[in-house]
Amino acid sequence: MKVQLDCVQCNLRQALEAARLVTTDLDIQKTIVLKSLEVLLEYDSYRTSPEMGGAVHEVVKEYTGNADPYEKVKRVAIKIAHDMYPVLKRYVETQEDRLLSALEVSAVGNLLDAGVYGDMRTVDMEAVLNRELTKGFAVCDIKALREDLKNAETIVIIGDNAGETVLDRILISEIKNVSGEKVGVFYAVRGVPMINDATEEDAIASGLDHDATIVSTGSAVPGLILDEADPEFLKLYRDADVVISKGQGNYETLSDTAGRGLYFLLKAKCEVVARDIAVSVGANVLVRK
Amino acid sequence: MKVQLDCVQCNLRQALEAARLVTTDLDIQKTIVLKSLEVLLEYDSYRTSPEMGGAVHEVVKEYTGNADPYEKVKRVAIKIAHDMYPVLKRYVETQEDRLLSALEVSAVGNLLDAGVYGDMRTVDMEAVLNRELTKGFAVCDIKALREDLKNAETIVIIGDNAGETVLDRILISEIKNVSGEKVGVFYAVRGVPMINDATEEDAIASGLDHDATIVSTGSAVPGLILDEADPEFLKLYRDADVVISKGQGNYETLSDTAGRGLYFLLKAKCEVVARDIAVSVGANVLVRK
Repeated sequence: MKVQLDCVQCNLRQALEAARLVTTDLDIQKTIVLKSLEVLLEYDSYRTSPEMGGAVHEVVKEYTGNADPYEKVKRVAIKIAHDMYPVLKRYVETQEDRLLSALEVSAVGNLLDAGVYGDMRTVDMEAVLNRELTKGFAVCDIKALREDLKNAETIVIIGDNAGETVLDRILISEIKNVSGEKVGVFYAVRGVPMINDATEEDAIASGLDHDATIVSTGSAVPGLILDEADPEFLKLYRDADVVISKGQGNYETLSDTAGRGLYFLLKAKCEVVARDIAVSVGANVLVRK
Repeated sequence: MKVQLDCVQCNLRQALEAARLVTTDLDIQKTIVLKSLEVLLEYDSYRTSPEMGGAVHEVVKEYTGNADPYEKVKRVAIKIAHDMYPVLKRYVETQEDRLLSALEVSAVGNLLDAGVYGDMRTVDMEAVLNRELTKGFAVCDIKALREDLKNAETIVIIGDNAGETVLDRILISEIKNVSGEKVGVFYAVRGVPMINDATEEDAIASGLDHDATIVSTGSAVPGLILDEADPEFLKLYRDADVVISKGQGNYETLSDTAGRGLYFLLKAKCEVVARDIAVSVGANVLVRK
């Protein structure tokens, strides 16, 4: 999905929010805003918003001297998700269509997003998640997914935020119920800290290493740029029987350039992405492309 | 009130919104966003956010070739307010404290703001105003104002948006009930079209010429920069017995530099202004400074 003009102000807002997470020094905050404006002036050099966002968040890292500004935010999100895990796990297991229910939990877990909520410590995420769970999918290609899963030997999930990683364990468990215990599930994470996106460390803190093989995409933006990805990951991605891409950032970077069939599982969090999928802002979708 | 880092993204958002009001040409919209980024890079040269906003909205005017991008929006706001006027006029006249009630209507009318609501044609402003009217003031220096009005011979109201201009006629009427019919009321408007702020033409379309003498501040920003104001207006401003400044833009430009006692009557529409007045976002205030 091509970067849009709306993405400029959104990335600028994120730069200031990220700066404030790690420093109260107004001069540093100002430098970050002004340097971000310079980055945003290079609008035409970014194909997608996550590429622009990556550049802006690099500014934050450089001028705060903090390589992981969202570290605390991620820790909080993972804790929130761990606290909710047993309840949601039981909830899914009591549903008639457990795969559908696990996909819903996974999509709703995509709300644990600091790019949207800023500092999640100030939002009652548990209440938000509970409210969201009754919503269902606006688009749901589960029939095709279920068929594909039945015959799958290798499945790749491209993760998004830290926190939803915990809830994705429930999805992996239900995927194994459909595909069989022998299916190889790979959970792909960012190569470096980027906003609150999950890294290998976050995936392990989420307990995902018990359910899947954690791999790095090698990506240094809040999405997945295939021509900058790790060659080993690329091979896995191309050869997998099913790939499920989670969240907006992965959608924005992959929707036009996937080079293969993909399932996008996400909550449409902004007007720009919602319009591209032809749903309302806030809608949960599982869409095959 | 000094410009804040948050104002950068807000002014950038407004630039794109304003561009979209007058053109669907994506190249022009992009040029406006990029030129606005250049303007915003001059952060240190702006004392207040309205000065920065003025520069950004000049970019919109220049690259759309439209000297009044909000013309239609203003016409809609004035129509909405005209439609509500009779009901609100009767409402105020049935209240025990009519001055207080007229101040509330005037503050709530400050919601008719395209800087906040974008294209008001897509928002049910009547429903919003009705809901707001039950809210009252978070800060209300009405006791001092009532005393000052009793002895006043000359009163200046510094107007803000087109639309609330219509509802300010009710306030002027109640002011005359306190000060006496002979009091001279001057309603000050912007010197040129700026966002949806009222100009002389808008004040006349609002019927304000029946109730007050309309004067221009000479200001070319969405606020009032005293050292750029019209000398005739400045004399009036300095000599008036009571000055009521409406809206955020006037507050932001006058709160530190008024050079005289002022009553600020507004709705706090953003975090930055709300924090400065020590109220919550959305609060209505009448504050003497």
